[in-house]
Amino acid sequence: MTPWDSFLTEQDRAVLTRGRFGRRMGFGRRPAVVVIDAQRYMVGESGNDAAWPSSCGEVGRQAVACIARVVRAAQARAVPCFFTRFELDPEGTDIGVYGLKRDLLHSPHWCLAGTPGAQLVPELVPGPHDIVFVKKKPSGFHGTPLLGYLLDRQIDTVVIVGGATSNCIRATVFDASSYNLRAIVPQEAVFDRIPISHAISLFDMDRQFADVVPLQQVLDHLDMRQDESATP
Amino acid sequence: MTPWDSFLTEQDRAVLTRGRFGRRMGFGRRPAVVVIDAQRYMVGESGNDAAWPSSCGEVGRQAVACIARVVRAAQARAVPCFFTRFELDPEGTDIGVYGLKRDLLHSPHWCLAGTPGAQLVPELVPGPHDIVFVKKKPSGFHGTPLLGYLLDRQIDTVVIVGGATSNCIRATVFDASSYNLRAIVPQEAVFDRIPISHAISLFDMDRQFADVVPLQQVLDHLDMRQDESATP
Amino acid sequence: MTPWDSFLTEQDRAVLTRGRFGRRMGFGRRPAVVVIDAQRYMVGESGNDAAWPSSCGEVGRQAVACIARVVRAAQARAVPCFFTRFELDPEGTDIGVYGLKRDLLHSPHWCLAGTPGAQLVPELVPGPHDIVFVKKKPSGFHGTPLLGYLLDRQIDTVVIVGGATSNCIRATVFDASSYNLRAIVPQEAVFDRIPISHAISLFDMDRQFADVVPLQQVLDHLDMRQDESATP
Amino acid sequence: MTPWDSFLTEQDRAVLTRGRFGRRMGFGRRPAVVVIDAQRYMVGESGNDAAWPSSCGEVGRQAVACIARVVRAAQARAVPCFFTRFELDPEGTDIGVYGLKRDLLHSPHWCLAGTPGAQLVPELVPGPHDIVFVKKKPSGFHGTPLLGYLLDRQIDTVVIVGGATSNCIRATVFDASSYNLRAIVPQEAVFDRIPISHAISLFDMDRQFADVVPLQQVLDHLDMRQDESATP
Repeated sequence: MTPWDSFLTEQDRAVLTRGRFGRRMGFGRRPAVVVIDAQRYMVGESGNDAAWPSSCGEVGRQAVACIARVVRAAQARAVPCFFTRFELDPEGTDIGVYGLKRDLLHSPHWCLAGTPGAQLVPELVPGPHDIVFVKKKPSGFHGTPLLGYLLDRQIDTVVIVGGATSNCIRATVFDASSYNLRAIVPQEAVFDRIPISHAISLFDMDRQFADVVPLQQVLDHLDMRQDESATP
Repeated sequence: MTPWDSFLTEQDRAVLTRGRFGRRMGFGRRPAVVVIDAQRYMVGESGNDAAWPSSCGEVGRQAVACIARVVRAAQARAVPCFFTRFELDPEGTDIGVYGLKRDLLHSPHWCLAGTPGAQLVPELVPGPHDIVFVKKKPSGFHGTPLLGYLLDRQIDTVVIVGGATSNCIRATVFDASSYNLRAIVPQEAVFDRIPISHAISLFDMDRQFADVVPLQQVLDHLDMRQDESATP
Repeated sequence: MTPWDSFLTEQDRAVLTRGRFGRRMGFGRRPAVVVIDAQRYMVGESGNDAAWPSSCGEVGRQAVACIARVVRAAQARAVPCFFTRFELDPEGTDIGVYGLKRDLLHSPHWCLAGTPGAQLVPELVPGPHDIVFVKKKPSGFHGTPLLGYLLDRQIDTVVIVGGATSNCIRATVFDASSYNLRAIVPQEAVFDRIPISHAISLFDMDRQFADVVPLQQVLDHLDMRQDESATP
Repeated sequence: MTPWDSFLTEQDRAVLTRGRFGRRMGFGRRPAVVVIDAQRYMVGESGNDAAWPSSCGEVGRQAVACIARVVRAAQARAVPCFFTRFELDPEGTDIGVYGLKRDLLHSPHWCLAGTPGAQLVPELVPGPHDIVFVKKKPSGFHGTPLLGYLLDRQIDTVVIVGGATSNCIRATVFDASSYNLRAIVPQEAVFDRIPISHAISLFDMDRQFADVVPLQQVLDHLDMRQDESATP
């Protein structure tokens, strides 16, 4: 059962069947992992989330453990990992219209450049094949060199992990599939601060733009690649 | 009350308050209307939706009436309207990875180039200030000249209408706000084939990327502009 | 000898050597052909160029014959060809700032939509693997679905032909190499209305962003691919 | 007389007249300055250019003085300045296909991250309205947040300075005008390592995509803005 099954009506299921939505994309030939905003401000700290204004709380911390498994599995097979960090200038020069929807929060626990909140979570350690870069907008592709990095490595499949599911994951999935890259989302490795937004975003992505799959399936795929490359 | 209030828990509301989400962007100085995929395949026909595989049904047809009001109000004040048409080659040459999630549907009632399904709904009549263009991906900006059209007219605010809320509207809103354009979504003028996807997408967009507002508020704003321009 | 050798000084050659410019990119694994604006308005008609305001004249017509050879060679091996057409609305709604540099020319022999000038030259016949699309700006990538088409086919190398060398070819080469695609320019298959702009643009591109090579080298490469695929 | 007049033939001039090329764009309402790659590796050091593999030499150093005048004039009127820095990873992870045209130069005097060569020239001091950002490709727009910064400030005109004229200036001008921004290039404030590439690129840009103007004209325009704003 998927995380969204319980939210659908019979009428919804009939609509999906009629339109033949939600086939499987599957993995292509060459994957990369894109880790979206796995930063301290996104996951706060246990017992003290009230001090972290954008923390996704316990679900975020659990997802980080899953993200770390994906990253380590990729690194073991030289599958490149790209880490975005969402970071804003404390003076507000680069927040743009987002500053009209959110207050610029003057907190060391938000995503301001130079604060602890903006750091990658310590569980994730970029390796020699990996690149970390800053983004200013939800999608990991928007205003960043990510697409060029992927093309240079002839990547055709992106495993997208991190958070939040309904914001930056969703925007990154839209862009990936719009560039005709296959998008795979291991469901335990993405997280959101609003449970229903998380569940319905997974559903919406899986229906049209990405394969939302159990974490184990992604780990198995990466493991299998290792076995293949070991075969003469 | 918003279309999403009933879906939120007390915990969700506390999270929103803590993070200070969901302020109002407001209109800027110069708006345009972007009409997303208001095509016959999206709204089917009354009593015969079973023959239209992607029809959003009655909610789509009701939204079209609201879209037409927005378009006419804009046209009356020379506010430009940009209409996207989502259209795919019947041979599948341009469907890309979307062809892995959906079957290419060989139906005159889907979005294939040259079929009735791909036409704009007859209720919408582009005017002399308007442009109609084809897109191949969810966002009205992706792989299209839309951004240049907006910049040429010094647009800072886009009123986004059409469907489906959780797919193409959502992707277009992400891109608009990522380009630092203000995004306004009149809630009766967008539609989706899945009710919960519609409601939660409205919520997700309103929280971070767009103002989701009653239709009347957009109509009033456009009317007010007329009054202003009539003043010497 | 290259088309630009005669324009360089000893000092220029020393600068190039010191900076180690101009290595060969070479072909990658999977090429496509991108034909830029090979339209009637670009090449006019023999003996009557005065009636075609943007005609590149005889050099354009000679290049068209070479472009046709590249296209036929590609089509013979199922290498996809993408044809851009530069086309503007006769009412000027989509010309943008270009309308500040050029007059909108009310001529059936310029690039206005619906006029003979905007048609592809008759020597080029798109095949079943090919796509023709409209662009509004110099680069074949800007505001078009081209990049997605290339990614969908896992293209890593683009053979760029058409005109004009110093405008649309140059812009397309910048974008191709910025997306980390290998760019190959067969020098007889590009053309320009200003000879020195043609020669120096070839030089500038070859130094940093593309391999500018003799036509025969591209034809040979395409032929070789055929031989390879015929081998069991 | 322009820097390119001496290179054109009578035939060239007739072609330009026939096609009505090269009108003036003029300044729009709100300008910004974009400073491209005004870094130490681009201008070397007097008497020691042999040790700086990409140095443009004395012409670069003279242009830097002009760039500094533009920047100070802009800063005096709160016109925002955006500075790009071209910077590559010393391990080659982000050089992409450019690494096929150029060797990755293991020199502290090239553009490697963390080396002196990658620093902004000391003559340029970003102010409180300014933003410095890294780019990986020729255009200041490609894979960077620049476009969003400009839209957020409702910029309609970009004054483009820096180097090299035939590479990064040219690519940035293509993108600016493709986004329908007016592009102004003060000719003494751009520079190139190859004199003829510089002259012909100025010509090519002025003909179609930008106004190439004397430095003084840009300084006067910025001064005039100050006078206007001081007028009640």
